[in-house]
Amino acid sequence: MKHPFLATTAACLFTLATAQPAQADEGMWTFDNPPRAQVKASYGVDLDDAWLQRVRSGAVRIDGGCSASLVSSEGLVLTNHHCVESCLTQHSTPTTDLYANGFVSQRREEELKCAGTTLSVLVAMENVTAQIQAAVSGVPAAETNNARKKALTQLEGACEAAAAANPKMGPRKCETVRLYQGGQYWLYQYQRYTDVRLAFAPEIAAAQYGGDVDNFQFPRWCLDMSLLRVYENGVPAKTPNALHINFKGAAEGDPVFVVGHPGSTQRLLTVSDLEFLREVSLPVALFRNQELRGRYIQFSKLGGEQARITEEPLLSLENGIKVRRKQNDALLDGRFMAAKQADEAKLRAAVVVNPTLAAEIGDPWTANAAANAAYRNLYLDYSHLEGGAAFGGSQLFGHARRLVRATAEREKPNDQRLREYTDTRLPAVAAAVGAASPIPMELERLRLVFGLERARELLGPDHPFIQQVLGRESPDALATRVLATTTLADPAVRKALYEGGSAAVAASTDPLIMLARAIDGDARALRKRYEDEVEGPSATAAEKIAKARFAVLGTGTYPDATFTLRISYGAVAGWQEQGKPVVPFTRFARAFERHTGEAPFALPKRWLDAKGQLNLDTPYDFSSTNDIIGGNSGSPVLNAKGEVIGLAFDGNMHSIAGAFGYDPVMNRTVSVHTAAMKEALGKIYGAKTLLAELERR
Amino acid sequence: MKHPFLATTAACLFTLATAQPAQADEGMWTFDNPPRAQVKASYGVDLDDAWLQRVRSGAVRIDGGCSASLVSSEGLVLTNHHCVESCLTQHSTPTTDLYANGFVSQRREEELKCAGTTLSVLVAMENVTAQIQAAVSGVPAAETNNARKKALTQLEGACEAAAAANPKMGPRKCETVRLYQGGQYWLYQYQRYTDVRLAFAPEIAAAQYGGDVDNFQFPRWCLDMSLLRVYENGVPAKTPNALHINFKGAAEGDPVFVVGHPGSTQRLLTVSDLEFLREVSLPVALFRNQELRGRYIQFSKLGGEQARITEEPLLSLENGIKVRRKQNDALLDGRFMAAKQADEAKLRAAVVVNPTLAAEIGDPWTANAAANAAYRNLYLDYSHLEGGAAFGGSQLFGHARRLVRATAEREKPNDQRLREYTDTRLPAVAAAVGAASPIPMELERLRLVFGLERARELLGPDHPFIQQVLGRESPDALATRVLATTTLADPAVRKALYEGGSAAVAASTDPLIMLARAIDGDARALRKRYEDEVEGPSATAAEKIAKARFAVLGTGTYPDATFTLRISYGAVAGWQEQGKPVVPFTRFARAFERHTGEAPFALPKRWLDAKGQLNLDTPYDFSSTNDIIGGNSGSPVLNAKGEVIGLAFDGNMHSIAGAFGYDPVMNRTVSVHTAAMKEALGKIYGAKTLLAELERR
Repeated sequence: MKHPFLATTAACLFTLATAQPAQADEGMWTFDNPPRAQVKASYGVDLDDAWLQRVRSGAVRIDGGCSASLVSSEGLVLTNHHCVESCLTQHSTPTTDLYANGFVSQRREEELKCAGTTLSVLVAMENVTAQIQAAVSGVPAAETNNARKKALTQLEGACEAAAAANPKMGPRKCETVRLYQGGQYWLYQYQRYTDVRLAFAPEIAAAQYGGDVDNFQFPRWCLDMSLLRVYENGVPAKTPNALHINFKGAAEGDPVFVVGHPGSTQRLLTVSDLEFLREVSLPVALFRNQELRGRYIQFSKLGGEQARITEEPLLSLENGIKVRRKQNDALLDGRFMAAKQADEAKLRAAVVVNPTLAAEIGDPWTANAAANAAYRNLYLDYSHLEGGAAFGGSQLFGHARRLVRATAEREKPNDQRLREYTDTRLPAVAAAVGAASPIPMELERLRLVFGLERARELLGPDHPFIQQVLGRESPDALATRVLATTTLADPAVRKALYEGGSAAVAASTDPLIMLARAIDGDARALRKRYEDEVEGPSATAAEKIAKARFAVLGTGTYPDATFTLRISYGAVAGWQEQGKPVVPFTRFARAFERHTGEAPFALPKRWLDAKGQLNLDTPYDFSSTNDIIGGNSGSPVLNAKGEVIGLAFDGNMHSIAGAFGYDPVMNRTVSVHTAAMKEALGKIYGAKTLLAELERR
Repeated sequence: MKHPFLATTAACLFTLATAQPAQADEGMWTFDNPPRAQVKASYGVDLDDAWLQRVRSGAVRIDGGCSASLVSSEGLVLTNHHCVESCLTQHSTPTTDLYANGFVSQRREEELKCAGTTLSVLVAMENVTAQIQAAVSGVPAAETNNARKKALTQLEGACEAAAAANPKMGPRKCETVRLYQGGQYWLYQYQRYTDVRLAFAPEIAAAQYGGDVDNFQFPRWCLDMSLLRVYENGVPAKTPNALHINFKGAAEGDPVFVVGHPGSTQRLLTVSDLEFLREVSLPVALFRNQELRGRYIQFSKLGGEQARITEEPLLSLENGIKVRRKQNDALLDGRFMAAKQADEAKLRAAVVVNPTLAAEIGDPWTANAAANAAYRNLYLDYSHLEGGAAFGGSQLFGHARRLVRATAEREKPNDQRLREYTDTRLPAVAAAVGAASPIPMELERLRLVFGLERARELLGPDHPFIQQVLGRESPDALATRVLATTTLADPAVRKALYEGGSAAVAASTDPLIMLARAIDGDARALRKRYEDEVEGPSATAAEKIAKARFAVLGTGTYPDATFTLRISYGAVAGWQEQGKPVVPFTRFARAFERHTGEAPFALPKRWLDAKGQLNLDTPYDFSSTNDIIGGNSGSPVLNAKGEVIGLAFDGNMHSIAGAFGYDPVMNRTVSVHTAAMKEALGKIYGAKTLLAELERR
């Protein structure tokens, strides 16, 4: 499963823009600079403006971190099952478990509202690099970071205000995008859908058949699909730009295009950035997450209800572990690191022999290394206090922190706030505050205890933060005490605090609000140190390195992934694994052969019952050479005509190291075949109305 | 806590002998080559033969992996609390929990038998290098490994037979020792005590105050001590060679000596060996153990009984995690690796310019790298099937494997057996088979499920081993089935199978015996491949590299640690931690100040009750510059007169990287002060009889 935000550490924000010639099928290209020549040369396909315009307006971003596409003129949206998990768990209880049993609406009135889910469609793109450069020009170095953020906030605010004033436009959301590590800034405008409902999802056992064991593997047999529907004014939205599904799918060798929102790549980090990942942030995260995995698993074995509430967070955690583990392997590979060192040395040497360039940029590599050294010193304190690791991912602590921060920030002028609380982002903050998702208290307790126990180990029992938070309490005692009396699990309580503003939050005696308030000063101080000592100097250095790269290596390339719309190209193809060919298609028959009856290889009853009706030779999942990464989950896979012939849901194991570079020989995208969707919707799930809607042209 | 066998992977067996000039206070020296000149020069102390002979005959090895010393003429043995944990848990039940509550015998008849514990005192050492070299001389390369093992087994057997035939000698155990990576072979003869009883142990909360949080930290407040007594013929053994305890202890700057059994160091591994550790064995172990930690912790929170049975294995696991984590940090340090690369390049260059040497040894580094490459390919299969990782450390599976293997091997001629089942080792095997330690079924289940779930993930669900073992069962289902009917938890059942030999084992229908039998062929095949492709070539290469090292750098040094008797020297001293001095002593008062009442900072009731009687200024723990490593736990710390003035139980955090090299500035040994022992035995535990025995001269 590909999720977008796994590999993003602060260090990753300051990657270099690649300007090396791209490999065949490499690249997550922006729509202002599509790989027309490469596609024409490799596959004979013309990506003309009309084609690009058409697929762009059918591409959807699920703002929590996935991709999707509009697939009917009445608002149906196709995405992965694993992209709608929060909606499924919202509607699941011990007695009606949609996560386990799936959901099929036969009539629109049955469709289920997904609280907190918003979808965005990119409708305009504007290059604002000149405005940002003007805003920071002449500003003292120590102020550059703030000046840049302020200018970005102002551009976003002005864009949304203009849209609101224009009666012809619907509500717009405007987001600035930093491409090529600050080599370019863009302002993207999105049409936003906030009423999103669930129409179809299979059982988790079918969607993620093989569970974590098969995750990132291929061959694979997963129906990792779901259907949402966007609504406007209480009725299905009119979406005439929807893409058409071709249920025949594609054949081996066919050119295919993935249009979606890759989350984050780190392909041209400096050597110092990579060392930070390898020596600090990846090992720390892996060690923590492995332990949390053990706690989740042991807890989940206590019974059916414990298994139910743990399944989704556990699968998501395990997905992240697998991603980081393969990233870690890549960074421990001596040849990889040596190649990065050689590339960097070559670029630095090219700067030295170019006196004009050298005078302009100085030595940003040394500045970058100094910022990373500062981050090493700050990392444990910063990640525990400001990053919240000390609270183990507790959702309730997250609410408390959000309420304390959002109410305080909202009372400041827009361009003086922390960026996550600017006007552009406040609607999402309010939605998160009010979201009616159940918060299982036993899991909250597990996470809080885990976070505090590890914080005490890593910071030490005499650390001022540990002394302040724990005092003479153990992590177990603290968790018991605060969870016994907090009322933050109630959305109405949270909403009242949010609306009451900082005065209401200051008056609250909720123990989690009190905790978040008590540490807020120290956490903000660490944030400030991080911004001044790490983020600011790193950003400045990265912009200069990008300048060197553009000057020395040219500009005809794609930027690192930023969870913004991209297109990647390739062909349906397998690969050679340890000398043996991997065929690019799987078929239904083998899924039944692998059925053991025990999770994660237990096909749902509906599948076993329908077996006799199915064409077992139907293609199920397939692999292609497209260059994608977490965040692309749910992306439509298109043929040369722009028809949907697949649904990307994963990459093979080799694709994980794609964070650092694309390998055309081994890296493969894994997608659900459209023929499998039709077979399953029609014969297994009896979703005839939905299928008819998808087949209508 | 220092344990011996943490860092030993097969790759570690083939380390290089250091022959660089040692740093001040560096080295774990053998008794045939003590650091006389260095000690005289640094501290003015003469380590004459009489002194060395005296301390050697008072030094004890606890065969499970610790050190100790004889401290009364009637068989009292001083060691750490954490070295007698298996004895304490043997005698602990939900109602009488000696692990939690400690144990004080007031009369010898109350002393508790420690089943399976054996103690060894080194009584003779013989250099047998020439015999081994003769045994392999002229043997074809593919047969060298076997020929060497056979010769070692024969030497051990002949030594024990000679001792048994001599009516003046007690029973002897003879073990060959490989020093300097095969540069030398020795035959060590031990007097063996098999009747070992517990006389005193404090509460775990006092012995390991601060638990895992404070582990490897200093300042520290732990009474990590215990007293055993060795018996012969049912009465306390006469031990006239016992060391004397000086209850005044030592002052800052005093020269001190640690005499004990460091388990394993890897100070001169090849770069290829270090890369194997960094990229394969350390990450795999850390990821696994972190998850197991999470499972243990979550399980232990279910209730008092679950906490009780998990406490010891959890602390031990966490100790190993901390060790490996700091080792991992050391190996990820670019400067460390660069220094190793430079050293190796220098040695290789020196060989190239010496044609005689080059002709004799060839290029062992390339052979070593090839062996490591073979090990990378083999590692997951080998560690899961032959190493038993697939069974998660299940004690019952360990018994099953031991019974299947030992009965088969015992029926072969001694020198054709796997080395762990030779006549020298069979008494320990028999003791393990018959040991009456309780085996909590809930933990067995946890371990089996963990091992099988991870094996299925790492080997893949289609791996022949997974198909054979799991078939259509899930790990949970398999564990439930086999644990419901196995009778191997009963020592009498195991003893009957052991005595019944391979016929009894072949006839057994116990599900774990059947499992161990079913996979034995494949596991042995992997063992054979490991020995042929990895162990043998590595050993040959290591001997050649050792030869190069001796030729180029000389021979006046110490070998890597091998869990055999060593002496290290140094002084009572603190160090500077981030610019702040760490004082080398702690005192009782601060232990009470750190008491929160919540584990791991909850002093036992006996301590709180006795507080008024105690001299709170009594020195508690102290740090010194001695170079020690896991396995040294329980070692006596001696003053220049050879009196016991402390009890080594740990190192500071910087000592962990001591596996790879000694840092005189930061590396410190941590010991219990003898004044604290006296204060506690007398005033807290009322152990007046034992104290009087210790004070008698």
